[in-house]
Amino acid sequence: MKVFICGFGTVGQGFCEVLAMRRQFMLDRYGEPVTVVGAMDSKTYAYDPDGFDPLELVKRKQDTRKVGDQTYEDSVAVLEKADYDILVEVSPTDVRTGGAGLLNITHALEKGKDVITVNKGPLALKFQELIALARKNGCKFRFEGSVGGAMPIINLCHENLVGENITSVRGIFNGTCNYILSKMDKGQPFEQALKEAQQMGYAETDPTNDIMGYDSACKVAILANSVFGRNVTFNDVRITGITSITEDAVSLAASRGMVIRLIGEVSETKLEVGPRLIPKGHPLSISGTLNTAQILSDLAGPITVTGRGAGRLETASAILSDLISIMDERKRQR
Amino acid sequence: MKVFICGFGTVGQGFCEVLAMRRQFMLDRYGEPVTVVGAMDSKTYAYDPDGFDPLELVKRKQDTRKVGDQTYEDSVAVLEKADYDILVEVSPTDVRTGGAGLLNITHALEKGKDVITVNKGPLALKFQELIALARKNGCKFRFEGSVGGAMPIINLCHENLVGENITSVRGIFNGTCNYILSKMDKGQPFEQALKEAQQMGYAETDPTNDIMGYDSACKVAILANSVFGRNVTFNDVRITGITSITEDAVSLAASRGMVIRLIGEVSETKLEVGPRLIPKGHPLSISGTLNTAQILSDLAGPITVTGRGAGRLETASAILSDLISIMDERKRQR
Repeated sequence: MKVFICGFGTVGQGFCEVLAMRRQFMLDRYGEPVTVVGAMDSKTYAYDPDGFDPLELVKRKQDTRKVGDQTYEDSVAVLEKADYDILVEVSPTDVRTGGAGLLNITHALEKGKDVITVNKGPLALKFQELIALARKNGCKFRFEGSVGGAMPIINLCHENLVGENITSVRGIFNGTCNYILSKMDKGQPFEQALKEAQQMGYAETDPTNDIMGYDSACKVAILANSVFGRNVTFNDVRITGITSITEDAVSLAASRGMVIRLIGEVSETKLEVGPRLIPKGHPLSISGTLNTAQILSDLAGPITVTGRGAGRLETASAILSDLISIMDERKRQR
Repeated sequence: MKVFICGFGTVGQGFCEVLAMRRQFMLDRYGEPVTVVGAMDSKTYAYDPDGFDPLELVKRKQDTRKVGDQTYEDSVAVLEKADYDILVEVSPTDVRTGGAGLLNITHALEKGKDVITVNKGPLALKFQELIALARKNGCKFRFEGSVGGAMPIINLCHENLVGENITSVRGIFNGTCNYILSKMDKGQPFEQALKEAQQMGYAETDPTNDIMGYDSACKVAILANSVFGRNVTFNDVRITGITSITEDAVSLAASRGMVIRLIGEVSETKLEVGPRLIPKGHPLSISGTLNTAQILSDLAGPITVTGRGAGRLETASAILSDLISIMDERKRQR
């Protein structure tokens, strides 16, 4: 199975490390290795039909800051010339245009390749178009890691809960906001909690995407499209961030046995992100950088799943689970 | 697809209701109906190769307290004469001998039938023997609802997390105990909280199985066998119940930001049930009758899943998910 990896930051590198860790497992399960034939960062690429040692690629990137010797202008032109089976698209999210990720995914699906992505931009902007393209060309298209990292939400809804009528999904989809709100529970003001989140590496220098609720809104749009079959984009989500939550509001909530959490909520009609009061002891009242989602359905009632929403190996583990699901399906079709 | 239901209490009746609710869904998905050809309670049975209206069976049971016109001495003799594809074994748990459930499941697997069960007795006593028998005879054997009701834990470990190295599973596996401990968090003494649990219908008149930790221990044994491939029984579990938890202990924990919860824990080496201190805001600190399980694995880190551990439709929903999984597999094998 030949894999081409687009995007070679934390997630792309983590995925290479996971492939090295699971080399024998995949060989035993499928009788063939998973070979990385190509990898691309924002400026360079490496391609070899015989494949690379994935850990060599990681080392090269870390030593030279480049994954390959060759530079490129047009990522699609690089993919066009490559021979591969599955595109792993993990380049940075661009929620304005979809960025290179949208071009790469579209090209791969047009060529009949299977695609795994955690890139939220293409999914939050052109979901139904990409699904239709995949279906038309008989491609498998998976994106478990795009919502909640290692937290298994999308495949859970599609597979384990396929017999349920799911009426809503709501949850905490941004670990940075949850970290800040958890610190505010302990009496810290917003600015100090944000600063601490930046020092810990949870928040970026420009934290806008997280604290304004934009990142959560991407995930809510993806869930609306994938779980509810809606046709929405990031721009349709009603968004309120956490920047105007005061210490007074947090302590007032606490006096009533509640915490404030940034909740994304989606159903047939709802599509929103905003601060909500959650009773202490409720599954959505968790603290720290975790992500969590509560699925409400007619038979099972509420099912909540919680996990690490980000991280090198954590996000790569979601890609591995998609890879296994694709290879299982290919194996059955042989 | 012909189903025979052994056990016609809350869960058996709930499953019939779910089959009625999902009649069209199953017909659309598989091109054939799921037909209940037989049902058995503790004394009577009904059998018709042409099948019953599942809601008629529920009504008959509720009106007459009997599911069938015919009485029986030997459940296996009834099954022996019946023509069916899948046994749904939901008779009451007997963790001393395995009870009728063990006999019924063993007989069905010996005859090459697929089996779905939520009966903890056979699974907590003879797990590996039953798995081996199923494998020998090419039968599918599923038991998602035996641990945590609607909470999808077993299939999650076996399917979504198949690429993970799972190192431990720990969680709250008894809603009655969790209800009592949550009430104690609010200042109620144990006896009063237990009484309230009985009035609410969460605890039985004889609450021994729940409060002594025996029910949780069954589930821990099932997880040890199914997730870790161990060969243990209920009798191997180190068990401490919640009867000696005092109001003082609960308030001391609260003063340190902790709650006391009855936690079952299983790994390659651990197999125990007992009260544990859990920090507030931790995914295992939930209140009320919910069940929850935290799966620790090498790539994803901790994944926690929470849901209703019991209930008419909730447990039936787990059986439906097993039924779908079996019918999907049969469809692929055709």
